[in-house]
Amino acid sequence: MSQSLDIAVIGATGTVGETLVQLLDEREFPVGNLHLLASGESAGASVPFKGRNLRVRDVAEFDFSQVKLAFFAAGESVTRSFAARASAAGCSLIDLSGALDPMQAPSLVPEANPELLQRLDAPYQLTSPSASAVALACVLAPLRDLVRPRRVSVLASLAVSSRGREGVNELARQTAELLNARPLEPRFFDRQIAFNILAQAGVPDAEGHIALERRLAGELRQLLAEPDLRVAATCALAPVFFGDSLALSLVSEREVDIDAVRQRLAQAPGVEFVEEEGDYPTAVGDAVGQDAVYVGRVRGGLDDPCELNLWIASDNARKGAALNAVQSAELLIKHYLSKILT
Amino acid sequence: MSQSLDIAVIGATGTVGETLVQLLDEREFPVGNLHLLASGESAGASVPFKGRNLRVRDVAEFDFSQVKLAFFAAGESVTRSFAARASAAGCSLIDLSGALDPMQAPSLVPEANPELLQRLDAPYQLTSPSASAVALACVLAPLRDLVRPRRVSVLASLAVSSRGREGVNELARQTAELLNARPLEPRFFDRQIAFNILAQAGVPDAEGHIALERRLAGELRQLLAEPDLRVAATCALAPVFFGDSLALSLVSEREVDIDAVRQRLAQAPGVEFVEEEGDYPTAVGDAVGQDAVYVGRVRGGLDDPCELNLWIASDNARKGAALNAVQSAELLIKHYLSKILT
Repeated sequence: MSQSLDIAVIGATGTVGETLVQLLDEREFPVGNLHLLASGESAGASVPFKGRNLRVRDVAEFDFSQVKLAFFAAGESVTRSFAARASAAGCSLIDLSGALDPMQAPSLVPEANPELLQRLDAPYQLTSPSASAVALACVLAPLRDLVRPRRVSVLASLAVSSRGREGVNELARQTAELLNARPLEPRFFDRQIAFNILAQAGVPDAEGHIALERRLAGELRQLLAEPDLRVAATCALAPVFFGDSLALSLVSEREVDIDAVRQRLAQAPGVEFVEEEGDYPTAVGDAVGQDAVYVGRVRGGLDDPCELNLWIASDNARKGAALNAVQSAELLIKHYLSKILT
Repeated sequence: MSQSLDIAVIGATGTVGETLVQLLDEREFPVGNLHLLASGESAGASVPFKGRNLRVRDVAEFDFSQVKLAFFAAGESVTRSFAARASAAGCSLIDLSGALDPMQAPSLVPEANPELLQRLDAPYQLTSPSASAVALACVLAPLRDLVRPRRVSVLASLAVSSRGREGVNELARQTAELLNARPLEPRFFDRQIAFNILAQAGVPDAEGHIALERRLAGELRQLLAEPDLRVAATCALAPVFFGDSLALSLVSEREVDIDAVRQRLAQAPGVEFVEEEGDYPTAVGDAVGQDAVYVGRVRGGLDDPCELNLWIASDNARKGAALNAVQSAELLIKHYLSKILT
């Protein structure tokens, strides 16, 4: 690509934002000027890019007409405050927070629904979905016509890095306290996360679901173009620093051909299928730091020929967030660069 | 109870066996002579009981006609080797290993299927089911008629103590190595368990299921007297020392009345329902060391009125194994002591 693009990354100091900046470099994304932004308290820090240290500036003072593409990798409130301003300035955007209306900013996972871009127009507004939805979409999209899914039940054991750097630090601190037999006072999480599992990665609504569970279900239906798919989702927090583990149980409307599923997964883009007998992928041992979603333990039901069970491991910050956003941007500029630049 | 019973505990030096001996004391079980047994390498150790240290002897040299009740809390191979000998000597037995044919030694969870004992005869052969089955049966039995279950999908995140003392030691060792930035060489588990989740707590068969998953499904169907219940089970190992966490998604044949479910759970024997809004139980914070199964996150489906989702935390070694076996023995002697003694 000869032409380059002026870009903003909002939330550049977070775990996802830093990975995103690093991927723009690694993947030789055609970056012209790169503007690193963050909300108030993080402005002033610096982040390395192509051997230079770039100063992070306050997003509130940024003029979005300087860029043609913005990644929103800060929290929901930052997206809510500044996404409209970016769009009004003609800037296309990819939001990673899930704050935008899915009708206005639909979810894109290039391995699952690349055709989405055909029916949108500039300035583009896209959502890079939750890390669990990215992983599930990569695995399920290539199986869709083979395994007509009627119902999926997902338990996502999320890494503490899904709650940012404070989550990581708190797990390390709690673990060290416990190993040294010191009394534990939970700080960032509401209780002990070290050597324990927390049943909900967020605050439940009146019906008991957390926002991430609703988000995952909605995103998955959209990504797979299966509006009637029934999704049971539980998003728990595990004492793992990086890498999500997902147990998926799927009910098909027909008998599942497990061998055919294995063949599809072995060829699926963005998926690393661990197929050796008895072997299986783990978040830390396989997925972390990698660009693929790892899948294994492919098996039918114990008593139901219409069932498919899978185990998925994925790097939540990289493949589940930063990389999916960058891949989405790559797809956008590959086919629609002229529209973005107008 | 005025009459006391001579008892053997096989596997008395293991995590479950030790808890079992402790519970016989705590609960003032009417123990006459207590014989502590183990397979070869553990014989010779001593275990405290009622302020004395009892010597553990080799099960291979034990004459089972000396006792009327035996708890088999060693591994499957020990049960396979010695259960028949115990029965032939007229000794009733409760096996915790799952090695016996379910037709010959059906599963008992006193909160779920106490009526089982009516159709058996002395010498009794009972199975104290897998820890996950005990927890699920305690929670689901009181809901059976309310929520006619058609299908359940379970992800059990098991504590490393489910693999005995070596599992506990290995998690501690690996965690300390990693926190001290020393290179990790997995020993007892086949890979890193510290800050990671292993997808399968055992070796898969040709169809990809591990024995514990098959055992859980079969036991659950028997305990609930629901032979057609469809069970999808994944038993993973989590970096947790003690206490299992289970995410359950259930599909009913009818719409689920969530309020009625809550009311039932609040009154269910052996169940502690965490009902305060936004609160939820955890394995370490609530269940470990307790006699109840903890349940929370009771909610319907995101998009299916026939769905019920729950989170369960239970002490795998205590409630899930040792206590259930002792409660089973208590039920047995309460109603059938004369039969046991003949």
